[in-house]
Amino acid sequence: MKVTVNVFLKDGVLDPQGKAAHHALDSLGFKGVADVRIGKQIILQLNTDDEDEAKTQAKEMCETLLANTVIEDYTIELN
Amino acid sequence: MKVTVNVFLKDGVLDPQGKAAHHALDSLGFKGVADVRIGKQIILQLNTDDEDEAKTQAKEMCETLLANTVIEDYTIELN
Repeated sequence: MKVTVNVFLKDGVLDPQGKAAHHALDSLGFKGVADVRIGKQIILQLNTDDEDEAKTQAKEMCETLLANTVIEDYTIELN
Repeated sequence: MKVTVNVFLKDGVLDPQGKAAHHALDSLGFKGVADVRIGKQIILQLNTDDEDEAKTQAKEMCETLLANTVIEDYTIELN
């Protein structure tokens, strides 16, 4: 089962990568950009077809490794 | 208008970040993982309410800055 995990910085946490991209877009002439935030998208292929189990596993992976929950939030989607 | 851009390595391109995460998950005892791929999720806030214009702008940004189209693919979603 394919699980998509999106990890992004919490609101209010400074996002230097996003700021750099915003600045670069500005320099390239894209003037209509109000904000840019950059996060990670992690695509997991799990050896289970049970939706609940896949979700539980993915949540545990996020809490222990994939996300830094002090400064990051995450969402889990099953595909 | 909020535009979500997902940038990920093309199939067949080696993903060392994903490999490292896979290995780390294995070491932590998550044995049911077949594959891990890691990409970027870029959330753009554009100063336009026109869907076509937003999509065109986002595509141009991907082609010129956000994605390395030699090794990366991207998808654009309007929210």
